[in-house]
Amino acid sequence: MKRVASPFAYKLVIAVREDIEFSPGKMAAQVAHAAVMASLEAKAKTTKWFSEWIREGQKKVVVRAESLGELKELEAAAKRLKLATAMVQDAGMTELPPGTVTCLGVGPGPDNIVDQVTGNLPLW
Amino acid sequence: MKRVASPFAYKLVIAVREDIEFSPGKMAAQVAHAAVMASLEAKAKTTKWFSEWIREGQKKVVVRAESLGELKELEAAAKRLKLATAMVQDAGMTELPPGTVTCLGVGPGPDNIVDQVTGNLPLW
Repeated sequence: MKRVASPFAYKLVIAVREDIEFSPGKMAAQVAHAAVMASLEAKAKTTKWFSEWIREGQKKVVVRAESLGELKELEAAAKRLKLATAMVQDAGMTELPPGTVTCLGVGPGPDNIVDQVTGNLPLW
Repeated sequence: MKRVASPFAYKLVIAVREDIEFSPGKMAAQVAHAAVMASLEAKAKTTKWFSEWIREGQKKVVVRAESLGELKELEAAAKRLKLATAMVQDAGMTELPPGTVTCLGVGPGPDNIVDQVTGNLPLW
């Protein structure tokens, strides 16, 4: 079987807790929140990675994390690699208790560096 | 019954086509794409609205659109009101045919102006 090479060398990964129940719209809003915050942080702090990611078309991948504890470990690993991170707390106006941590944005950054943090996590 | 006033005066609404089948992760990635693109456009073109929205905590709402035609009508209405917009086409690497238009970001902008465009659409 031929494998088609990906045209993307940069990506933003958003890890979402699978131990929380979300409606699809709620989950999408949380992921969007992580994506905007991580993008803005990358624009300020890892500008070249941000610019390349935008130029390529902003690849985003949504993956599963088991728990809040796992999100914290991922955040620490990402920071060690100088990747932008964005931990999202829900405002709690609707489905979730206020302050619930829902997801974590990692990157955007080079594929191989982001994979050192999130490469083992299953897709949503 | 007491009604709690919302602390948010600005919002970004993302309208997602309900005539396309998405996995929750795929939908979340599309919504995130719209949110990042609309935010960056608002930052450049409607900077005060963008800044207020960030300061408040970036309210995001995900709603349903019936079709591509409805997304196009919403986009035109938003542009008439000088709101940032971001129409998202999927790269088509995974679930969807390449170039499929999936969703539209409207804003971020003042609640009452965004509602003139998307106020009648049901939540996801």
